[in-house]
Amino acid sequence: MAKQKPSVPKGTRDFGPEQMAKRTYILETIKDVYKKYGFQNLETPTMENLSVLTGKYGDEGDQLLFKIVNSGDYLKKVNADDLEKGAKHMLPKISDKGLRYDLTVPFARYVVMNQGTLSFPFKRYQVQPVWRADRPQRGRYREFYQCDADVVGTDSLLCEAEILAMMGEALTNLQITDHTIKLNNRKVLTGIAEAIGENGKESELCVAIDKLDKIGVEKVKSELINERGFSTSSVARLDFLFDLNGSTRTKLGKMKEFFQGNDNFLNCSLVGSEIGLKGIKELEEVLDFAEKLGVSFKNIEFDVTLARGLSYYTGAIFEVKVNNANMGSISGGGRYDNLTGVFGLDGMSGVGFSFGVDRIYDVLEELDLYPSSAVETTKVMLTNFDDQGRDYSLPLLQKLRNAGISAELYPDNAKMKKQMNFANKKGIQYVVLAWEDEMAQNKYSLKNMTTGEQNMLSADEIVDLLKG
Amino acid sequence: MAKQKPSVPKGTRDFGPEQMAKRTYILETIKDVYKKYGFQNLETPTMENLSVLTGKYGDEGDQLLFKIVNSGDYLKKVNADDLEKGAKHMLPKISDKGLRYDLTVPFARYVVMNQGTLSFPFKRYQVQPVWRADRPQRGRYREFYQCDADVVGTDSLLCEAEILAMMGEALTNLQITDHTIKLNNRKVLTGIAEAIGENGKESELCVAIDKLDKIGVEKVKSELINERGFSTSSVARLDFLFDLNGSTRTKLGKMKEFFQGNDNFLNCSLVGSEIGLKGIKELEEVLDFAEKLGVSFKNIEFDVTLARGLSYYTGAIFEVKVNNANMGSISGGGRYDNLTGVFGLDGMSGVGFSFGVDRIYDVLEELDLYPSSAVETTKVMLTNFDDQGRDYSLPLLQKLRNAGISAELYPDNAKMKKQMNFANKKGIQYVVLAWEDEMAQNKYSLKNMTTGEQNMLSADEIVDLLKG
Repeated sequence: MAKQKPSVPKGTRDFGPEQMAKRTYILETIKDVYKKYGFQNLETPTMENLSVLTGKYGDEGDQLLFKIVNSGDYLKKVNADDLEKGAKHMLPKISDKGLRYDLTVPFARYVVMNQGTLSFPFKRYQVQPVWRADRPQRGRYREFYQCDADVVGTDSLLCEAEILAMMGEALTNLQITDHTIKLNNRKVLTGIAEAIGENGKESELCVAIDKLDKIGVEKVKSELINERGFSTSSVARLDFLFDLNGSTRTKLGKMKEFFQGNDNFLNCSLVGSEIGLKGIKELEEVLDFAEKLGVSFKNIEFDVTLARGLSYYTGAIFEVKVNNANMGSISGGGRYDNLTGVFGLDGMSGVGFSFGVDRIYDVLEELDLYPSSAVETTKVMLTNFDDQGRDYSLPLLQKLRNAGISAELYPDNAKMKKQMNFANKKGIQYVVLAWEDEMAQNKYSLKNMTTGEQNMLSADEIVDLLKG
Repeated sequence: MAKQKPSVPKGTRDFGPEQMAKRTYILETIKDVYKKYGFQNLETPTMENLSVLTGKYGDEGDQLLFKIVNSGDYLKKVNADDLEKGAKHMLPKISDKGLRYDLTVPFARYVVMNQGTLSFPFKRYQVQPVWRADRPQRGRYREFYQCDADVVGTDSLLCEAEILAMMGEALTNLQITDHTIKLNNRKVLTGIAEAIGENGKESELCVAIDKLDKIGVEKVKSELINERGFSTSSVARLDFLFDLNGSTRTKLGKMKEFFQGNDNFLNCSLVGSEIGLKGIKELEEVLDFAEKLGVSFKNIEFDVTLARGLSYYTGAIFEVKVNNANMGSISGGGRYDNLTGVFGLDGMSGVGFSFGVDRIYDVLEELDLYPSSAVETTKVMLTNFDDQGRDYSLPLLQKLRNAGISAELYPDNAKMKKQMNFANKKGIQYVVLAWEDEMAQNKYSLKNMTTGEQNMLSADEIVDLLKG
């Protein structure tokens, strides 16, 4: 066999030591917050039955599922006719499993399978990779981590308030202080369609509004009129929303008037909306809870145009952006009323959110926010110039480790320069050297690789110094 | 669509909160040891190109690889002829990726792809799941975690000694104190074949000897004679090995005589073996290093019949058993001379080992060795009987979390019994209660769920008590 030049599949990545250290720092920071708020860890299998996955992510999602060839004679159910009927027809005959596409559907499956033994409300977090056969491009991978937290089995709005607290706390702990947590409610979007006289058309409204950031107000309005069948007068009533300003509480007050059909401040008539008012009430209650929890409102903003994931969410909607980085949303979520209905368990309301690990990684790179402790490797390397020095250093090596200090001895006799390069490249902060002088005094020279400072110390002194 | 009763693919598992807490405890304990010895974390993609995986695990391994159906029109290279030629012929036309089968081949691929930037010796650890389409049975899964540590780019025997230290330290930290680390060397096995006059037949010898535990000495001997073409007189010379006893150092001394062809103590003549002597010398050097590192020899045993993974290992061989549990080996490893040769990079010697996470999990269950901290969930739950009590408790909730204490408030107004059951089932140790009395005194009642003790305390007193 010819020697191959190996590679990884497109859209997938190796994570080497430095990347892993940074990724671990991000994930541990987020997990610590999840745990502090009472969430418990869940892991589900990489493979799911296609009967579980198919039909949950729309037609496009079904296309993007990675499917596993059945084990053994995978062609046993296939004949020439099947082949002629084509790939799509034949697929169910050769594959009954696929790779996890997100963490939500497996979570729903888990809840349904374990409904008899779980205690509700059930708070779970899950940090695992997912796979999508998307066309890879900058920032979009075929394998990437999701990092979800959900509460199911309660419709208490306290959960939404805690999500605001958790988002803020995780980002603050990651030093991403200049962020905005945008908040809306699906009922507000439903109410808007109703209030402007386009009852039942919130889906079309949201698809258009979702593009606001990209195409601007005028194009959104013309799309609504020309492509989505909204009347000119209905769309005129939206101006109020695009111009909404003031604090979050102020904006909520204005929206309340809007939904009450109070059009004193508008040039057009409104029909009002009960469900819109309910959405505003829910948002106010979430903020009241958040206030009692001591959550700072500095970074929280009610955004009436926030419309993500509409088909799925029924209450609160969240999205987080970093203000001083060139990046889309790094976190999002919302409330859903019927997570498990598709698996036969109705009435399981829940609310959840997720952090985008790859995006947070890039933001921390861009803003240079990784603490030095995040990328710490071996703390101290013991050099190895000859067998005598090596053997003299072995007891110190284990003494350091017994004190909990990460330490290694260069395993081969080698030249100074080679070993110093090795230590530098691995980011090791201290190096221990021992020649005749040191041995005669039962000491070691400790060199700080950052400052260049070098001192002759006893083993115990070195341990004490590096522990501190 | 009819409601489905969902399930997971056979041989795969969900890990719920308690299992995840225990698994995390095991993995973190092992990782802490790896890090302390200077190993760095690596993660490779779940999917690898089949060109990387195929041919690395033998014919059986190739069969057991999970293959991914190509994206898009996966049949575009297939015609009716291909179908007729059968599943094995058609597979390469519909699939070019498979799931990771172990962590070693992806590691070798990574080293080759990054040889220009890595500093050698490169110490990496890797903790990720692998997949094998094996027939599932008790203790054998289709998805399971491996937990590897390897050093490549050095043939220093210090690495072997450090592996002995790491195995012992990890198991001690997991409270698995009654274990045996078995040690052998491939060269010793080669030497035995030579010394008994069956030069070059160490593979056959090892396959038979590997069954010693299961079938006993007599059956091993008759297999060698009747099935593997060994002469009766050669096999008679093996009796010495089966009877080898004494301390590890003593046994090594006897083996040295064996390989020197000194047959004073045998009833049969020996031809001696240079390579066997080299193997013994390596083992002695490993033990010398281990001694200087302060490794206890209490749990270390030279076992001349240890023969695992022969086709792969060229030097030291390790295997760990728990003496007081009903379980096969929980760890193993060895030295290999040419990890990366198959990818075109020769001369990369290395040594590595792995812990079997699933088996360690079962051992800790069987011996009841999980510390209570390993399964700790939320530390304290605040009850919620009515809106007034709930709102009164919210500031305490956040105060607890700000102090780093994992806390949650039951999100709905509910009866005492329901909330206490919830706290019990989740394993929460403390519960906070607040009625009129407590509120009047600006205090809370804190109940210890283990002892039943209940005290009225201020918010600060509760934080102090739970922090301690």
